[in-house]
Amino acid sequence: MMGMPNPDASDRYPLLDTASARDYAAGLDAVRERLGAPPEKWQAREVGDGNLNLVFILEGPEGSVCVKQALPYLRAAGPSWPMTPERAFFEYSYYEAVAPHVGHQIPEILHYDSRLHCLIMECLAPHIILRRGLIEGRRYPDIGRTLGEYVARASFFTSDLARPFEQKMESMALFARNTPLIRITVDLVFTDPYCASPRNRHTSPELDAAVADLQSDGSLKAAAARFGQKFLSEPQALVHGDLHSGSVMVTPEDSRVIDPEFAFYGPIGFDLGAFFGNLLLAWYAQPGHEASDGERAAYRDWILIEAQRFWESFRRRFLALWQESGRGDAFPARMFASAADTAPLAAARSAFVDGLFADMLGFAACKMIRRIVGFAHVLDFESIGDRRVRATCESGALALARRLLTQPERFGSIGEVIEAVRSSTVRARSAAARG
Amino acid sequence: MMGMPNPDASDRYPLLDTASARDYAAGLDAVRERLGAPPEKWQAREVGDGNLNLVFILEGPEGSVCVKQALPYLRAAGPSWPMTPERAFFEYSYYEAVAPHVGHQIPEILHYDSRLHCLIMECLAPHIILRRGLIEGRRYPDIGRTLGEYVARASFFTSDLARPFEQKMESMALFARNTPLIRITVDLVFTDPYCASPRNRHTSPELDAAVADLQSDGSLKAAAARFGQKFLSEPQALVHGDLHSGSVMVTPEDSRVIDPEFAFYGPIGFDLGAFFGNLLLAWYAQPGHEASDGERAAYRDWILIEAQRFWESFRRRFLALWQESGRGDAFPARMFASAADTAPLAAARSAFVDGLFADMLGFAACKMIRRIVGFAHVLDFESIGDRRVRATCESGALALARRLLTQPERFGSIGEVIEAVRSSTVRARSAAARG
Repeated sequence: MMGMPNPDASDRYPLLDTASARDYAAGLDAVRERLGAPPEKWQAREVGDGNLNLVFILEGPEGSVCVKQALPYLRAAGPSWPMTPERAFFEYSYYEAVAPHVGHQIPEILHYDSRLHCLIMECLAPHIILRRGLIEGRRYPDIGRTLGEYVARASFFTSDLARPFEQKMESMALFARNTPLIRITVDLVFTDPYCASPRNRHTSPELDAAVADLQSDGSLKAAAARFGQKFLSEPQALVHGDLHSGSVMVTPEDSRVIDPEFAFYGPIGFDLGAFFGNLLLAWYAQPGHEASDGERAAYRDWILIEAQRFWESFRRRFLALWQESGRGDAFPARMFASAADTAPLAAARSAFVDGLFADMLGFAACKMIRRIVGFAHVLDFESIGDRRVRATCESGALALARRLLTQPERFGSIGEVIEAVRSSTVRARSAAARG
Repeated sequence: MMGMPNPDASDRYPLLDTASARDYAAGLDAVRERLGAPPEKWQAREVGDGNLNLVFILEGPEGSVCVKQALPYLRAAGPSWPMTPERAFFEYSYYEAVAPHVGHQIPEILHYDSRLHCLIMECLAPHIILRRGLIEGRRYPDIGRTLGEYVARASFFTSDLARPFEQKMESMALFARNTPLIRITVDLVFTDPYCASPRNRHTSPELDAAVADLQSDGSLKAAAARFGQKFLSEPQALVHGDLHSGSVMVTPEDSRVIDPEFAFYGPIGFDLGAFFGNLLLAWYAQPGHEASDGERAAYRDWILIEAQRFWESFRRRFLALWQESGRGDAFPARMFASAADTAPLAAARSAFVDGLFADMLGFAACKMIRRIVGFAHVLDFESIGDRRVRATCESGALALARRLLTQPERFGSIGEVIEAVRSSTVRARSAAARG
């Protein structure tokens, strides 16, 4: 482990390699059954970049599994944040909590080892990361609906709408210990991008003025800070905490949510905004991936259709679940037992979901801004080689995010948001024509 | 302990009497110092009704202390809710958490015993319960300001505005275990009053129609349920959880907050609403305590002035603390370092506090309703012997509470609320004249 910081003795645990990963997994019934014996015939290979986690694929004659071990420190160059390997525990705990509700939209978990900080799970193949698919211009016909329903199910069933609050409080107290990863979000999403920080970077010099303008816009910063405050003080449900397009693995027929290390009880809009905002980033990045002008026009339209379906599917499913399975302590069923209660209750549900919509937009904006101005950028933009083209794409996304934060009253419906995104192109073209 | 349910063996602990309370306290340096030796000369007497807690006063030549031991069960006739004696731990933990911030507005805590579920604290004398003072028509010149500032300090310093979120999450996880007492609030404040429940009662037959009307008002119930949901999912700060006028002990010069067994992380407006709502209940009850018509008119005005000062003092202090001591992760100071940020930040603070105001009114309404329609009533009304007079007083309070919940847009300022309360009399008199 050359170059690794020396962890405290108490933090030490053996790090796996291909041989030890195979030996370890060979001791587990569930793995042997899935791969087919004997273990000597299994193929083991390391995948992943080894920056945050070690990831191994084990393949046997009858199947395969994925072994994911959390590394004790962030190995990337740059500042070292606490990245305790206990995040594997929260990843496992999230999967356990949502598994009964989301069906096969998460990988099947075969084993968790608290000593090794390691998870063994179903190997997703031939899935690829959704973000990569979006960069390559691939279509996933059901992605918006599937993810919208996923967020609806995962959040509804872990909220006070679905179960006695005692269960939620116990689970909330457990995930409240996931502070090292929550700290990353607090700093990198809600703080750094809005002030000078050595961790920030942006496409320079093209975006210098836009970034300076953003960081001196007090109203925008106050709006972003209000969402940062909500992030910390509105535990509506168990949220994934990092649900961008890099946390979804897809084929044209299937999609799975992965990497829930950031899970905790927070606002439902945070997961909604992460996914929605990253679809918008993918949309804004498309011109950077065109071989010829307008080549991706239809694909861009498809992205927006899926973004709209994401919200609409979430909304429809969440409201349906509330109506069918509202057995929690919030809006207790016994308070609304008469027929005359139906309409006012429906209005209250609708108002609550409207609040989630506003939260989705605010959090989406924060997530978009941090990917352009903050520490961690996205491959959608990073893979655009021509810096000026990349800057133009990023500028469009940044401008929309700012409007979402500072003019929320102009985005009362999903249609208005989609229309504002679509007209970004026109604005950019007009600006180019004027310039 | 005749008539007590038989607790599980694991729950058993010795219950104190005057002799054992004195013997126990005699073993504690802090108590011996305060009372003056020798313990044989201490006077010990039991006070309190022994329903929820055993309370003893120990007096020595140089001072006195109060010994409060939690009983394992609710001894009152009626349904038995879980009232685990661990509530003494949460009472102690609340005092510990707010003590550095609220000065002498809480009793000094000398000792906590986790095995006996027992607290030994400063004996408050010649203090009386504020509710009793309000019934008797006594004035406490600084009560509104003192309590407003108390809530501002206790909530600000335990919120994300004042400290790193890691500290809040750790404390929140601890208080999340206080579920038995939170369950009481969920059921008795936010659910039972809005549907048929054997635990409910009201002044009958005078209020029969009003209660039936309330329980069939779907919009009102939806509004109350929304506040119930907020209660469970907006841990803005450590709240007392039961801050009515029975949880404040007063002299004309001093006031102390007691009995924080219901403490947990919740909406700041819940504490604000408890105190504000109970001042309004005291106002509505005044005609029931008059020896002659109009005798309490000036006193009533005084109550409203203090209610207004309560809110205004909270608001002023909370905003001042935020400006002076805003070192938390919400609205991080480094995001707002330039002079140009001052105005937008002030606007955001003001908007946040406006939200607390709306919450205060909604929670006040819920607290008022439950004291008239639900299980636990208040002495303000209960001590009115003439049932019809009591019903008239309660009707006025109930009508205002309903307006607060269903027409929140009409109560944008404290002045509008005070004016609506004041004009209740006129309405009631007009109604009486018509009737």
